[in-house]
Formats: sequence, structure tokens, C-alpha cells
Amino acid sequence: MKNENVSYRSLDPLFYPRSVAVLGASKNPNKLGYIQVKALLDGNYDGAILPINPKETEIAGLKCYSTLSDVPGPIDLAIFCVSASQVLQSIEDCGKKKVKAAIIFASGYSETGVEGARQQEMIVDTARKYGIRLIGPNCVGLVNTLNGLVGTFSPAVMSHPLNDQRAVGYVSQSGAFGILTYMAAAQNGLTFNYFVSVGNEMDTEFADVVEYMIHDPKTKVISGYLEGAKNPAKLRQLAKEALNKNKPIVVMKTGRSSAGSRAAASHTGSLAGSDQIYDAFFKQTGIVRANDYEEIISFSKLFLSGKLPTGRNTVIITSSGGRGINEADRCEASGLKIIPLRNETKEKIKEALPSFASAANPVDLTAAAAVTNPELFIAPLKALLEDQEIDNLIFTEFPMFWRDDHPLLQEFIQKCKESDKFVLVTTFPLQGMSIPKGTSEMEKNGIPVIPGNLNPIGALAKLVEYSEKYRKNQINEAQAGQKYPVLKGSKPNLQQLLKPGVTLSEFESSEILELYHIPTSQKALARTAKEAVLHAKSIGFPVVMKIDSQDIPHKTEANAIRLNLQNEQDVVDAYADILSSGKMYNPDAVINGVSVQEMLPKGTEVIVGVTKDPVFGPVIMFGLGGIFVETFKDISFRVAPLTRQDAAEMMEEIKGKAILKGVRGQAPADLETLIDVLLKVSDLISDADGGIEEIDINPLIVYENGLKAADALIITSHSSLEKTEAGRR
Amino acid sequence: MKNENVSYRSLDPLFYPRSVAVLGASKNPNKLGYIQVKALLDGNYDGAILPINPKETEIAGLKCYSTLSDVPGPIDLAIFCVSASQVLQSIEDCGKKKVKAAIIFASGYSETGVEGARQQEMIVDTARKYGIRLIGPNCVGLVNTLNGLVGTFSPAVMSHPLNDQRAVGYVSQSGAFGILTYMAAAQNGLTFNYFVSVGNEMDTEFADVVEYMIHDPKTKVISGYLEGAKNPAKLRQLAKEALNKNKPIVVMKTGRSSAGSRAAASHTGSLAGSDQIYDAFFKQTGIVRANDYEEIISFSKLFLSGKLPTGRNTVIITSSGGRGINEADRCEASGLKIIPLRNETKEKIKEALPSFASAANPVDLTAAAAVTNPELFIAPLKALLEDQEIDNLIFTEFPMFWRDDHPLLQEFIQKCKESDKFVLVTTFPLQGMSIPKGTSEMEKNGIPVIPGNLNPIGALAKLVEYSEKYRKNQINEAQAGQKYPVLKGSKPNLQQLLKPGVTLSEFESSEILELYHIPTSQKALARTAKEAVLHAKSIGFPVVMKIDSQDIPHKTEANAIRLNLQNEQDVVDAYADILSSGKMYNPDAVINGVSVQEMLPKGTEVIVGVTKDPVFGPVIMFGLGGIFVETFKDISFRVAPLTRQDAAEMMEEIKGKAILKGVRGQAPADLETLIDVLLKVSDLISDADGGIEEIDINPLIVYENGLKAADALIITSHSSLEKTEAGRR
Repeated sequence: MKNENVSYRSLDPLFYPRSVAVLGASKNPNKLGYIQVKALLDGNYDGAILPINPKETEIAGLKCYSTLSDVPGPIDLAIFCVSASQVLQSIEDCGKKKVKAAIIFASGYSETGVEGARQQEMIVDTARKYGIRLIGPNCVGLVNTLNGLVGTFSPAVMSHPLNDQRAVGYVSQSGAFGILTYMAAAQNGLTFNYFVSVGNEMDTEFADVVEYMIHDPKTKVISGYLEGAKNPAKLRQLAKEALNKNKPIVVMKTGRSSAGSRAAASHTGSLAGSDQIYDAFFKQTGIVRANDYEEIISFSKLFLSGKLPTGRNTVIITSSGGRGINEADRCEASGLKIIPLRNETKEKIKEALPSFASAANPVDLTAAAAVTNPELFIAPLKALLEDQEIDNLIFTEFPMFWRDDHPLLQEFIQKCKESDKFVLVTTFPLQGMSIPKGTSEMEKNGIPVIPGNLNPIGALAKLVEYSEKYRKNQINEAQAGQKYPVLKGSKPNLQQLLKPGVTLSEFESSEILELYHIPTSQKALARTAKEAVLHAKSIGFPVVMKIDSQDIPHKTEANAIRLNLQNEQDVVDAYADILSSGKMYNPDAVINGVSVQEMLPKGTEVIVGVTKDPVFGPVIMFGLGGIFVETFKDISFRVAPLTRQDAAEMMEEIKGKAILKGVRGQAPADLETLIDVLLKVSDLISDADGGIEEIDINPLIVYENGLKAADALIITSHSSLEKTEAGRR
Repeated sequence: MKNENVSYRSLDPLFYPRSVAVLGASKNPNKLGYIQVKALLDGNYDGAILPINPKETEIAGLKCYSTLSDVPGPIDLAIFCVSASQVLQSIEDCGKKKVKAAIIFASGYSETGVEGARQQEMIVDTARKYGIRLIGPNCVGLVNTLNGLVGTFSPAVMSHPLNDQRAVGYVSQSGAFGILTYMAAAQNGLTFNYFVSVGNEMDTEFADVVEYMIHDPKTKVISGYLEGAKNPAKLRQLAKEALNKNKPIVVMKTGRSSAGSRAAASHTGSLAGSDQIYDAFFKQTGIVRANDYEEIISFSKLFLSGKLPTGRNTVIITSSGGRGINEADRCEASGLKIIPLRNETKEKIKEALPSFASAANPVDLTAAAAVTNPELFIAPLKALLEDQEIDNLIFTEFPMFWRDDHPLLQEFIQKCKESDKFVLVTTFPLQGMSIPKGTSEMEKNGIPVIPGNLNPIGALAKLVEYSEKYRKNQINEAQAGQKYPVLKGSKPNLQQLLKPGVTLSEFESSEILELYHIPTSQKALARTAKEAVLHAKSIGFPVVMKIDSQDIPHKTEANAIRLNLQNEQDVVDAYADILSSGKMYNPDAVINGVSVQEMLPKGTEVIVGVTKDPVFGPVIMFGLGGIFVETFKDISFRVAPLTRQDAAEMMEEIKGKAILKGVRGQAPADLETLIDVLLKVSDLISDADGGIEEIDINPLIVYENGLKAADALIITSHSSLEKTEAGRR
């Protein structure tokens, strides 16, 4: 069993060991055991390197020990370059020597099936017995570029010189993708401080590494590659801590498509939830979702420049009209706004530019002008920096003749530094179109210069989203006392109502909703036609009548529902009709009777639902009712429990939100009360503690003031086991 | 005035001149006039190079002439390296010397405003007088890499060695973007045969170059960069010719965003239509829209491999699970289908792979396996090639150890060649991850190998779309006799009904629709309440009543419409109500009376409309009625005139198409009759010959059999000038 309470500090020996033993060290340069020793040497690892091999006395100039126990001093970390069959015994040896952590590359474990998983479990149990922290198996290892700990056989690290910029950590569930990302980052001026390939995550999981980096002062951005979140509750809590610290988590999550998800499931054995839920989770937690590794690199570089964008309003400055238009397209596709310039700003720019340049947005300096007259870059900059409407400036090209000591470059940098506007310079990465001079000087001064193929515009848009989330979080933190009160008092009654493993009738479901102060339509159960008439009179005409049976959840399909009944005769006829339809639809159904309900006036029909996701547990859904949810799939999700901000964002996210606000002369829907309903459902789910499998409040009819559920369905969980499973998440 | 009938052959002297004069040739190596002479020399141009400069006798080893008239032989092409002020006189000189064509780089013309446009017009007039074809001004020139004609000052061409692959032509409305694309293509194994920067298109337009390439046997793909189509009717006809010849046109069109469009308008002075109409136009014509220059390069390479994909069903073969998932995501996002493998195929693959590999889709060979056992690439390939469900195979990696003469490589190539399945190999473009050996051998044998950063998957998806369009076009061509019969007989009556420059009343609009056999609701105009009752009785209750006035087009807004009137009294009351509402809404309105109409039974409400686009002329719109068009903007467009296929695609394209096919127990809508209506509207627009500005048939109520317009509005064009302008398109 995993010990959830182990402190992140126990990972220190993995990142900062004072000594590293290489098990299975070798003299053969083609063997893993040699490559690993050499990597530590070439990496200038700042601790002791201890090759272990009973057949050798020296490897690569280092003293070689026969066994771990022969090593005189303590050993912090062991790197396993041994075959799978030797791993278990070696862990025992490590335990006896009091080794604190180990990296295991070998594959053939849980990723191959039941027998491999059993082997893996034995290794973990042994390690836990001795308190050893593990990375792997089936991984490419761990690298710390700050102390030279190259704990990997991959040549990628040694083949790339270290950049100065080393404040971004990276953790990957795919070794190959991880290495690729490491290389691409290194080639673009960014060396990860930590690189961790978590492999099968038998002990150290993705979230554990994130936690370590959150507490590590040398890490300013946490990046990673994710196939499936194993512990979303922990990740959610960590994301909150990271947001409080303004330390972004940027993750590339694959398996967007149904096909991709299938592959992810069979690849790492991790349970991948549907991508839509992941998207909701990322939005909710402020984790930045990168589309590709290029965006990870760009986002990190933009963040490290030190400024957070103040908004979405963006101006492009170009010396190629065509490129300006293209970048404007990219901006708008990413969610940045290309705003029309104010006349005042336009006039200032026009004064400074030749007649054939364009003072619109994009500002087109024209190629000829930019080449012969570098002043053209300065005057528009000044005008734009003075305009309070603008948040971001993107220079799509840069004067090729500017050098580090060019006075105009210094002026350019100075102006940008004094402003709170975000300034981004993008370049072309083509051969023969070399990176312009002066860019290193700019980067040193907090102006990021990023090649176009790293999608800097997409990354900027994500940084804007991140800053919005960060600022909202700051406000929420300040108002922390004003949270929605949890209705814990309802809990004892709730447990009685939640019979396990059944589909509750509309009556029973409504009772539970009412317990949480979610209004439902007035209703009474009739067991005879006469009773139905009495109920109808008491409720008031017109009424609705529906069959009441746990065995007929889909009442419309069974033709066992009648609307808009105007008088006694209607009710008597409907009673007989409904019963016979119900019996015809399902002759074995146990029918409790016929429910007589008030006919609700028209309003905006919405649906509020709950479903249980295999990864995230209970997930709350919101959408417009009827055809909108069926045909347009116009719905939004959030993982429970919800905050008020989550609930508000759910309404904002649907495409048909204009309908909520009132179209075609209809009154706007009571959004505040609707938000309350979502929060109450969230409370209900928490209180049920895994006991609820699904909820459908459909339709929930929302009025200008207030709302009422016209129908409701709750499905409870089957067993206490299921409850515990779900409760654990 | 532009002479539309000039044959594309008149462009021959631009592409294949036997002699080229360089006006303003110079000895100064920093001057355009030297750079241009040198470029022709270094390009090994296969004709005579004739420097012209009165002050020199020799330039770069070539005899220099004082004036054009001093040149003894004929001159096919003149390249103008002179300042803008000398251009007009030089054109006169060219005319006298019977020069056939000229390239003009200079800027400062129509792109700068009215005065520049006037200058430009004078140049064109002079050139037309002498029959000289022109490229430019404000362009970077024209290059033919087949005969060494480097007609540009850009160093890009000379700084890149020529590739063998030279069957793709390129034409650009942006010089800078054009050069960038040329360089990127050349760096990725593709040298354009022709490169044309059309600049201000004063004579030779984008479409003219496309036309030349369609007729050029050395061009297999026509590519380009477009900001605004100047002659969409010509482009549409050319696209049809190109499709008949299976010669794809692949175009990067910028200005997708509203902001981008604004910039495009001010950049080239071309009128950019809304991007949605461009998208419709491209879909309609089979022009492939590339998102970036990378897709132009990839698409061209994929097409040149010689196979057309047979469908969308795609299997990924990877040796990195993570990358496989990521590529699967990209496939599904692009519209390719990652299909689950059939059991039979799975079993065959499983037999050949180690236990820890995955026989799902993506097929994961695993890194270790792929490195130590190259046979692993062959057995799955065989199984997949035998599976008839599969159209495309994508190999995301490739064995690094395969060399040109490796027997397994030869077997791999042989198997792929024998199959009609499309096989694509993608590679990583990172330094330190070199292109694997054997790729040149594969490319020689029709297996495209494309780096991942060129978006080969997006390009493959576009090639699939292209082949679908190509095959549909072949079928349509074969059935060319079966076109929808044009109702030309209606035309004389139509012209009488189209009073110029007015909003026709619903009566008048309906009359026109009926002329084209589009059924409208039965209706009669009442001028008294008594008349209204008589009409209602004759039509049959219930009825609808509406005000009839050209001055009140928005009847609902004026509260001047009453539905579901059940009896005489209702009609009498409604008559009075409607008149008073109408008068209150617009006291000055001329009211013809009240229209009494049949109350149409419920059906699927759709909207069919026509609007006039500034670029494309009349455009036909289709969508679901009411809230769907208002809130979800769920509409599709096609440029008139429509083909039956266009109309059918319009229904397929809307998101709510399921509603047309019947949801929630509703009957499906009569799509065939709906298609007929769209074609009839298209005919009406053609017959009106520019006389119609807008049409709104809203709602058109569609039943299981047949349909009827419940309301209609036609706005006619203001003047005969407007008619001619629109008719010309």
C-alpha cells in the first residue's frame, strides 16, 4: 500500500544525493552500466560515484566495489543497470545498506500484464519495508542539471550543452516524449533544471514530483507530459498551492481523441478519463494545458521573462504585411484580441511612418522602411506603450542590423522595461534567415524572443489565461471566508434515503433534492383514478401525470407521461392510459402508482447532472435542455466539489449562454439561483460520500426569479466497496 | 480596362523568355541593378542577358547597352531595376522595342493611395497599348528554376541549392511570405518550378498565373498565398479545370480573423470577403486551403508521391507509445479516423510482436523492440496492408539502422508499392535526432518521409478531402447531362417583378418565389375586416394575419402579426389590432392592407437566404430557423450559382443536421425538395442578373413530404449600375 503521508522531502535523495551507486556498472562501452557511469562523470556530478560490480576493481577511472555493502560510507541513491531478474534482490541489498532511493530502468512490469504487476508489487513492498523511494520501473531516469546528476542512459542530455536558463522542471509519463522535449527545449535556450521520467510510477508518481517542485525554490515553472492522472485529488490540491505561489504548472496531456485515450489506457495502464473532463479539470485548477512540447517551451520562456500580461488586447507590429495578417489570425484563433487602434494612437504612429506604411493593427512598418530606417521601430513603440487600452505588443520581425550596443536597441529595451505591457518578439527559425543580432540583449532584459515554430502566440494566449486565473485566485483567497455554506445538517437524513444500488423513483429523488433546498414541482402519488383527481384538485389544474416505477426510468419512451391535463375527466383518462402504457412497455415492472404534478409554467429549460468519471470521480454537468444537449452537445463539466467560481464558469462556457441571458423577448434566467443549485448538488455529492452514481435533473426550469426541477433521477452506488473506492479519490 | 480575353500563352515571355534586358543595370554590387544581373548569371539562365545602362559598356563580364533600342536582336522580357519615376518612360521604350513582358519591382503605387493608383493606371494603359504583359509593381519578381530565370533581387533563391523535385508552382500576393515559403520548401526537398510574386497585380493577377500553371505540363501542383481573390469567377472556373486534370490548387489564405481581414484590405488594397465565404468557396471549388506554409509543402510532397488516399481510416505504427497517442490526437483533430483494428488483423500482429507491445491502434512496437529487432516493422505492415478496412498507414518513427541497401527496407518498400494504401513516414526534425537512413530510397519509391514540424498529418487529411472532391467531380463529370434544369422561361416575368431598389412586400416576394415553383403559404390581401373574414373562410381556419407594407419589413417587431386565429371573431379583432399596431410602429407607413394566410402545420423550420458579398457576389445561406441561426450561428454558405452537390453539402455542413433527419420522434425533413429550393433560388439569382440584393425565406417549413415558405422577403438592387457590377462577377 502506498503511504500517502510520506513527505516530499523524502524525494531529496533522488534529486540531491551526496553519493550514487551504479549497480551493474560495466567496462563495456556498449553496456548500460558503462554509459551510466560515464554520464555521471561527464555531467560533473558533484557527489561520489560508486560503480558496483563483483568482477571489476575499476571502471572509467573510478574505484569499483564488489557489492553495496563493500562501500565504506553511506549511499543516498542507487541506479539500477541490472536486468529485471536481479532487481528484487538488489532492492533487498539496498535496504540492508540503508540506501535512501533508487532509479530502476528495467521494463517488463505492470505494463506487460498481471505477472509483471505482481513482480512490481513485490519490489515496492520491499522498498517500503526499508523506506526506499523509487523512480520507475520502465523509465529513462532522472536528471538534475544543477548538480550534474545525469541519472539516465539517454545520450540526449550529454549531447546538448547546458543553457544558463535552468528554472523549469519537467516530469513525464513517457520516456521517449520526455527526451524529445528535453532536446527541443535545450536547442531553444531552455535547459530543464530537473528532468524526471516516472515510468510505471510504482512509488514516485507524477503528482509527487510536482509536489517536490512546488516546494523547490529553484523551480519557477513546473512542466510535464501526462497520459493519465493517477491521483487527481492530490493534483488538484497541488495546483491550488502552485497558483497561490504563482508557480505555473504547464502540462501536455495526450489522448484527446477517443482513439488516443484507448492507446493511453493500454500504454501505461493508467486510467484515462474522457478528454472533456480533463479539460474541465485543467480549467478548474489553473493547470495550463499545452498542445505540444513547443508550447511548453514557449510558455515557460514567456513566464520566465517576469511579466504577467494585463489582458487580451494585442497589437502586432510587422515589417511584412502578409506575416502581420497571419499572426493576427493566430492571435484571434488563440483568444487574443486584435483591437482597432484609437485615433489618437493612430495619429501618433502616422506622423512617424512613411505614407505607404499602415497605422492600423497590425502596424505595418513595411520591409523597405524597416531595413533603411531603424527609427521606425521606436516611434510607434512609444505611441503604443502610451495607449492604456493595449495589453500586449507582438513584434513579428526585428531589424537585422541591430546589435547589442546599438543605441536604438538600448532605447527599445528601456522603453519596454518601463512599461507593464507584455512585449514579445518572434523570429523565423529558417536557415539563411538567422536570428537577428541583439536578441540575447533583449532576453537578458526580460523581452522574450521566440522563433515562430515554437508557437509563441498560442503560448502568450495561455499566459493571459493563466494570469486571469492567478488574479481571480488572489481575489478569492482574500475573500476566503465568503464560501458557500455547506449544508452538513442534511447528512444523517440523506444516508437513510440512499438505498444502495438502485434507480430511485422521481418521488424519492425529489425528496433528496428538497433536502438540499432544490425546489421540485409539487407532486403526489395516486394509486387510483379517484386519488389522482383529488391530488389534481389540490395541486390545481392544469396538471402533469407520470408513471411512478423504478423499473421504468424512461417515462417518455414508455409513453407513460401526460402533460397539460385541464380537468377531472382528463385526469381519469390519463390515469388509465398511463397504467396500460406502462404495463405494455414493461409487463414485469413494479408500478407504485401514478404521480400527479403541477404543470410548471414555461421558462428556460436546463439540465444539471452528475456522472462518475473513472479517473476524477463525481463530475457535475450543466447544459441547456432538450435539443441543445442532445444535438449540439452544448454542455460544460467541472469535477466535484465545486467552488462558486467553478459554477459561474460553467454557465459562461456553454455556447448557448445567450439563451440564459434571454433571447427573442424571453426573460433572463435567474443565474444566481442556478449557481446555488449547482453548489447544492456538489454538497449533496460530497455528503453522499460515494453513495451516488448518477444524477439527472432534467429539465430544471429556470425563471426570471427562482427555478423548479420538473423531473429528477438519482442512481445510487451498488455496494459499500464502490462507495469506499469513490470516497478515496 | 483589363482585357479578359488575353490568352494565358501571352505569359510565356515572362516564364520562358529567350532574352532578358535588365533596365538600370549597375556595376555597384550594392545596387539592385547589379544584384539582378548577377542573379541571372549565377542562376545559369539559359537565354541572353542584356544589361542596359547609358553610362556603362560592360557589367559583370556582359556587354552593356546604352538603351533598349541599341540591342540588336529581339527582347522578350525586361526587368525594371529603375526608380518609380523612370518606370513610365521605360515602358514606352519597351513598347517601341517590342519587348513582350516586364517585371516591375518598384513600390509607391496603388498600395499608397489615389495618386499612386493613378500612376499605376498610366503604366498599365501604356503597356496595354503595346501589348506588354506586366508583373508587379511592388513585388519581388518571378523565378523559373527550370531555365535559370532568377527574376528577383531576393538572395533566397541563390542561397538555396536546387532540389530535383521541381513540379510545384507557387504564386504569392505577399512578397515576404512568398520568399519565406520558397526557402522553407527548398530546405525541405522541394524547389518550386515557378515562383511568382504578383505584387499589386496591375496586369498579371493571381488567377492568371494559376491559369498559366494549369496549362503547363511541368506543373503538377499549384500552390500559393492569397490575401484577397480579385476575380473569384475566373478562379472558380480555373479550379474546375484543375480538378478535371487532377492538378490540385493549394492555397494559404490569410485574414481568417476580423482583424486579419482589416489588415488585408489596407495591405494590398484587395477587397477581402468574410472568411466564412472564402471557406465556402474553397470547399465548393476543391481548392485546398492550407493553414500555413508548412501544409503547402507537406501537401505537395504527399501528392507528388503519386497515390491518392482511398479514405479516412488510418492506422498509426509507432515505437513510442506517447508519440503514437499524440499523433492519434492530431489525426482525429484533422478529420482522419483512427479505427479500432479488426480481431483478425490484431491476431496477426500479436503473433509477430513481443508480449509488451500493443496490437491496438496505434500499434506500439515499443522502442526496445524496434531497436533490436527490425523484423518487427515488417510483420505488422503485412497484416495491415491485407486489411481492406484501412486506407492510410502512418509510421511515426523509423528504424535508425536501416540503410538504402538493407533487405528489410527493400521488402518494406516493395510491400508498400504493391498496395493502394497510402503510407506516410514522419520524422523528427531535431538536431541530434538525425533523419534516418533509407529515407531517400523510400521517397524515390513513392513513400513520402516528412518531418513532424511540417504538419504531415494535417496535410494528409487535406489530401483525403481533395481525393474525395476529385472522385465526386469525376462522377459528376460522367453524369454531366443530369444537371438541374434551369427555369429560364421565368426570366421575362421576373424582370417585370423586380422593381429596382426596394424591399418587396411579402406578397410580391412570394409571387417571385412561386414563379420559381417554390411553394409559399396560401394568402390573400384584405383591405377591410369583412374581406379578411371572407379570405379566412376560403383559406380555411385556423389562419395567420400579417400587416402588408413595404415600410414595415419586421412584422414581429411591429407586433403586426397574429397566429392561429380560429374563427371569424378572431379575424375581425386581429384586423383592427394589426392595423393599429402597424400605425403605432410607423405612422408614415403606406399600408396595403392585412394579409390573411393559411396557418401552416408544424414542421422543421429552416432559413434560406441570399446576401451579396463584396468579393464573391451573391452568396446563398442555409440554416435551421429561429434560435439556431440566432444563437448558434449554425449556418452554411455557398457562392452562387449552386450545383446539386453544393446544395447537398450545405445540409451536411450544419451542426444541427441531426434535426433535419428527425430527432425526438419528429419526422425527417424532405431533403430532396429542400435541395431543389436551394437550386431554384440559385437560378432566380442568376436570372435576376444582379437585380437582387438580398433574399430571406424565413421560416421555410419543411415536412416529411414537401415544404412551404411561411414568410419571404426580397430586396432588389438600387440601380442598373449595381446590376452590371454584380453581373460582371
